[in-house]
Amino acid sequence: MAEKPAYLGFDIGGSFVKYGIIDEGGSVVFSSRALTVLDRGAPSLLTVLKRATNQMIEYCSARNMQPRAIGIGSPGTVDARTGTVTGQSPHLPGWVDVELHTPFSPFGLPVAVDNDANCSAFAEFKFGAARGCRDAVAITLGTGIGSGIILGGKLFHGSHYAGAELGHVSIHADGPVCGCGNRGCLELYASAGAILSRAAKIARFYPGSPLAEIDFTARGDTPLAGVFKAARDGDKATIELLNAVAFDLAVGLAGMINAFDPEVLIIGGGVIDAEPGYVTTVARATAQLTFKSATRKLRIRRARLGNMAGFIGAAALGAELSRAG
Amino acid sequence: MAEKPAYLGFDIGGSFVKYGIIDEGGSVVFSSRALTVLDRGAPSLLTVLKRATNQMIEYCSARNMQPRAIGIGSPGTVDARTGTVTGQSPHLPGWVDVELHTPFSPFGLPVAVDNDANCSAFAEFKFGAARGCRDAVAITLGTGIGSGIILGGKLFHGSHYAGAELGHVSIHADGPVCGCGNRGCLELYASAGAILSRAAKIARFYPGSPLAEIDFTARGDTPLAGVFKAARDGDKATIELLNAVAFDLAVGLAGMINAFDPEVLIIGGGVIDAEPGYVTTVARATAQLTFKSATRKLRIRRARLGNMAGFIGAAALGAELSRAG
Repeated sequence: MAEKPAYLGFDIGGSFVKYGIIDEGGSVVFSSRALTVLDRGAPSLLTVLKRATNQMIEYCSARNMQPRAIGIGSPGTVDARTGTVTGQSPHLPGWVDVELHTPFSPFGLPVAVDNDANCSAFAEFKFGAARGCRDAVAITLGTGIGSGIILGGKLFHGSHYAGAELGHVSIHADGPVCGCGNRGCLELYASAGAILSRAAKIARFYPGSPLAEIDFTARGDTPLAGVFKAARDGDKATIELLNAVAFDLAVGLAGMINAFDPEVLIIGGGVIDAEPGYVTTVARATAQLTFKSATRKLRIRRARLGNMAGFIGAAALGAELSRAG
Repeated sequence: MAEKPAYLGFDIGGSFVKYGIIDEGGSVVFSSRALTVLDRGAPSLLTVLKRATNQMIEYCSARNMQPRAIGIGSPGTVDARTGTVTGQSPHLPGWVDVELHTPFSPFGLPVAVDNDANCSAFAEFKFGAARGCRDAVAITLGTGIGSGIILGGKLFHGSHYAGAELGHVSIHADGPVCGCGNRGCLELYASAGAILSRAAKIARFYPGSPLAEIDFTARGDTPLAGVFKAARDGDKATIELLNAVAFDLAVGLAGMINAFDPEVLIIGGGVIDAEPGYVTTVARATAQLTFKSATRKLRIRRARLGNMAGFIGAAALGAELSRAG
């Protein structure tokens, strides 16, 4: 019996490396995660990645699957041509100037490397909310705001692999300085991180607020779920906060629509996972702010692949590479 | 002797239609202008365009040149595939739902139609400041802010020919409502129109200001030249105004760079024609606000083709079309 092709994917995050195996149709046949270890710099994280690769290769050989390619999604600026992380993400200090083709060459498989948000966008394009489209913009509302852009059926990188950073388009020119150097970036107003820090501020000033019961130092989805629960329970300050965020986000999305005019705009990430209906709120606000010519045919959709999008997209980029070469 | 190929181009503006002939190398061999007449709706303007076409064809036949194509740049949303103005520009009311292939079919030449700012960008790409590049963003600071984007050596239109409207990316989410429906669009802060209205406000409140000597109702370049002269003469309020505009513009450009990561960013239009050195001021402010990875290799340049860029680019798009088949 012929072996079935398998594609291995990684999504390197600030806390965890998510990884998994997809088949030809994009179905996840295996997934796992490991701690992101950077205590001894890039080599310690490379060790984690290589160990997981071995684990996945063993998984495949036990199940008559043939690994055909490896894909790696990384935060920061990634030169996809050379497979190098050239610009550091604030969420992963020390992970920069790392070339990823060479360390993986012993596995004898093609290795695709790209920005993590680009990988998520590519996954939604191949197997999710933008399937069948040629032009799509995908926004991930996480700790920061990541974005990936598909133009003419291909990931758009810009001339120096530094494009598609839509979280760093300013919506408040008089706003605070962002880590990227710009002022008032969208990410400072509409990411999960921004929502949590604004909610924590309310909690500090109004001890009677339901937000004051949230442990904002907790990791994971719990604090954000608490914020959306307070809004569902009718807390006015929280509702106002989330409406203000939706408006800021809509202004940002309107700009992206006027710039990229995509067929579909996909919104995902922790914020949307916590409250899927928030996409409708944001879409309604966005429609008020855009040229009719651009939005008449535009669809604003929720991301479908959740927090596995990153490694699925990385694996899918590996698959493209293995077919091309 | 073989006839030399000639390409006819139009740039429809709010006051004038500029038009002219270019040769194979993009040199302007003839240029002229006519009043933009819309008193009897679109047909009156079509008459102007056809009369000018006949004039240019006669010019060619008297000089052993052979017209090969016609290009038309128009304000508003232009469906380049069907040659139709599908979305109205606020600067040209009544000029909408006009299909331009049919009225020009009697001339028996291929007809290219595109947005006016796209035509200017294409001219700079073929013959001007972005020659030899594959990815460029061109911004025209006129009454509004027009923009055109070249990606992979081709004009970028978006999925519904409504993209590349970078003047309608917001930089002040709390700002005034723009004609496009968005709030605080870049065009409201950094166009020639915005500079003039802010300068006129200063003039009204401070009769002693050198700006009070400017006739802001005058058409053409004079009022803007007066504003830049006041700054050169050391008027502090004017210098502050122009610095504030440069900062707002830089925030907007930083966003464009983070989104598109072009090889070259071109700035032109009335503002730059009035004060070419302003590009340096803006470029310096922009460099402070961007990821080093995106700007290390980016060049910010002044547009080279001035106010002929529109019809040159339109003619060049016609030339591409005639070569394609």
